Amino acid sequence: MVNGFTSGDIPDYQMSAWLMAVVKSGMTKPEIADLTEVMLRSGQVLSFASLPAKKVDKHSTGGVGDKTSLILSPIVAAGGLYVPMISGRGLGHTGGTLDKLEAIPGFNVNVTTEHFGRILKECGCAMIGQTAEIVPADKKMYALRDVTGTVESPALICASVMSKKLAEGIDALVLDVKTGSGAFMKKLEDAVYLAELMVETGVRMGKRTAALITDMDQPLGRAVGNATEVLECIEILRGDRHPMSEDLRSLSIELSAWMFYLGEKTATIDAGRSLAEEMLTSGKALGKFRDMARCQGGGDISVVDRPNRLPAATHTVDFKAATSGYITSVRCEDVGLASLILGGGRSKKEDVIDHAVGLFLHKKVGDPVQQGEAIATILYNSDARLPEAMQMLRDAYSIGPAAPAVKRPLIHRIIEGD
Amino acid sequence: MVNGFTSGDIPDYQMSAWLMAVVKSGMTKPEIADLTEVMLRSGQVLSFASLPAKKVDKHSTGGVGDKTSLILSPIVAAGGLYVPMISGRGLGHTGGTLDKLEAIPGFNVNVTTEHFGRILKECGCAMIGQTAEIVPADKKMYALRDVTGTVESPALICASVMSKKLAEGIDALVLDVKTGSGAFMKKLEDAVYLAELMVETGVRMGKRTAALITDMDQPLGRAVGNATEVLECIEILRGDRHPMSEDLRSLSIELSAWMFYLGEKTATIDAGRSLAEEMLTSGKALGKFRDMARCQGGGDISVVDRPNRLPAATHTVDFKAATSGYITSVRCEDVGLASLILGGGRSKKEDVIDHAVGLFLHKKVGDPVQQGEAIATILYNSDARLPEAMQMLRDAYSIGPAAPAVKRPLIHRIIEGD
Repeated sequence: MVNGFTSGDIPDYQMSAWLMAVVKSGMTKPEIADLTEVMLRSGQVLSFASLPAKKVDKHSTGGVGDKTSLILSPIVAAGGLYVPMISGRGLGHTGGTLDKLEAIPGFNVNVTTEHFGRILKECGCAMIGQTAEIVPADKKMYALRDVTGTVESPALICASVMSKKLAEGIDALVLDVKTGSGAFMKKLEDAVYLAELMVETGVRMGKRTAALITDMDQPLGRAVGNATEVLECIEILRGDRHPMSEDLRSLSIELSAWMFYLGEKTATIDAGRSLAEEMLTSGKALGKFRDMARCQGGGDISVVDRPNRLPAATHTVDFKAATSGYITSVRCEDVGLASLILGGGRSKKEDVIDHAVGLFLHKKVGDPVQQGEAIATILYNSDARLPEAMQMLRDAYSIGPAAPAVKRPLIHRIIEGD
Repeated sequence: MVNGFTSGDIPDYQMSAWLMAVVKSGMTKPEIADLTEVMLRSGQVLSFASLPAKKVDKHSTGGVGDKTSLILSPIVAAGGLYVPMISGRGLGHTGGTLDKLEAIPGFNVNVTTEHFGRILKECGCAMIGQTAEIVPADKKMYALRDVTGTVESPALICASVMSKKLAEGIDALVLDVKTGSGAFMKKLEDAVYLAELMVETGVRMGKRTAALITDMDQPLGRAVGNATEVLECIEILRGDRHPMSEDLRSLSIELSAWMFYLGEKTATIDAGRSLAEEMLTSGKALGKFRDMARCQGGGDISVVDRPNRLPAATHTVDFKAATSGYITSVRCEDVGLASLILGGGRSKKEDVIDHAVGLFLHKKVGDPVQQGEAIATILYNSDARLPEAMQMLRDAYSIGPAAPAVKRPLIHRIIEGD
């Protein structure tokens, strides 16, 4: 079916009927593993067997302010493993790694697989976009899913993600499956189900795989957008300890620790955690990030050391608290959409991103807030949709008389492959 | 959706995804009524309002040896109502009314809707095939369903059948929903569910509608094929009382009685039954059949009175009982397929039918049989697939030491619209 569709022998109308049948009836785990494998084999499968250490990667199901890739790739590369990361662009309220990287002037994500291998060898990490040679079946299937209401299927999501990640020629994979108001899987049980599917599929394909179910009930870190998010990553890599960024820093270290562990760099997760901390505090991770930007940049790479050269918005305005109290909840998706409508994201594939716009957030759930105090700072270039973005933030942030009694953990659950 | 698909604005691949979603998730009854209505309105809706009596029709979900249409149409027309019947062709193990009619030399089922109206006015009944003007949405949807695994959905079957029947401009409709080994709905509860859907849809569209759930666990009557089935109908219309044809005669009278009742010709079903009997015994129904054959024939119509002029097969052979005992069950579908592979049916739409071939059956379930006694007589022109047909009959008929304790009723249940 997949091969026939990829070659054009099976028409769109039969594939779309089949895709909808999968959406409605699901697939068994062996079926998903078979689907993943046949998709994987539809194109080029990379191999970096000649490199002298294990290749590991991380995949996130996407969220608001989720920028761990830019932090953990240099950490893990600095620690001695290879990170051949092929990423996607943002769509809807969640940002995409490629869009964030392109906020760095000159950073090139469109490289050949051959060039990808050379960067990986030289820098230890490389972050690029999909190439035409890798999993062509997924490209064609995803384009059809996008217009036939068949995107939201755990089985199809699993096969799509896993076939692309396994085509990178990796030895191990860490999955960051988000749950909460800003995630695609709003409910914990749905996130757990998808995580189990992906971990089991990875293991069936012979890769060490684990999934962390992590919280996406409020934005991660202090920045939402593209240049704003790159700035926050550079802050962490250079050792700044901004209180609003601690969740992002912690999660990046946890994911790095799992990558070290599954990539057999450290014998335990704890040792992986220590190694990740060391790579951050020693500045070695920042060095790797600088190397990668140089290898992939070709142009102006000085922003890593002079982040004020990142694209800047012409205007800023604070979104202020209407009453005093405590932040009781954040409708995370609305925060992402507020950035999107200012130009920081895409509602259609064709939309052009304004890398400069976005948000800096000043409050987390549970934080006290005074009437008139800034909850967020909006960076914008055009005020055409500013009132709309402002309204979205008003809708997103709830203020009540007391902080929530229970604090949501950053990591809800860990699912480890056998 | 339906209008966009019919006009070509909605591509096949979106329609097929939607059709599969309906197959998997079903539709609510109001949704099915809406779908039926929009399909109905996609083309010409006939109206015979100027005719001086009610217009009624019957639809059967199809079975083996099911030929009631050829008997009840002339009965009901003779009784004073109009029967504007638009029928289909056979596919798979079930025969189609049009194929049977075409076994009558010169009988023409491909007439314009205008000609259809004239025949109806003159004869009281007319039996034709689908025209391009009637429910074009169904034609296009059915063609897509046929190649996307989306045929077997009660909601889609209901909308397809009801839109076509309601386009005939009828006042009332009787549905013959088959259940048993030779029916599409093998299980009684599935047949009941489909019947309820269709009756409720008919009522919502302002038509008096009822459904009889009838038995299709063995072939109906004594003939399977095309010319063989026409002969059996002529026998019944001219007053023959063959014991093997009594089930067919009874069911034809029951369905006619419901048509008289719903068409407000008689105040009760019982009065309808008496009127149907009278139309048969008086020869008036046979007269109507002769009229219709003349109106639609144009060619050799003498077969109604001289049925030996029907196409005849060159060879006959008996299928004989291997042991003595009682017929305990018949795998009805296999009997239909035995006729099909001899040329009496179609496995693909393009197949050309040999009207002469078929079967005459000599035993019903529960009948005693002696070793070597004929259970069926096979009429064939080529012996290429005769052994295969013979094997199918051997597989179809089970002989045991005693007749089944419980006899299946001819009519399992009646579902009447409010």
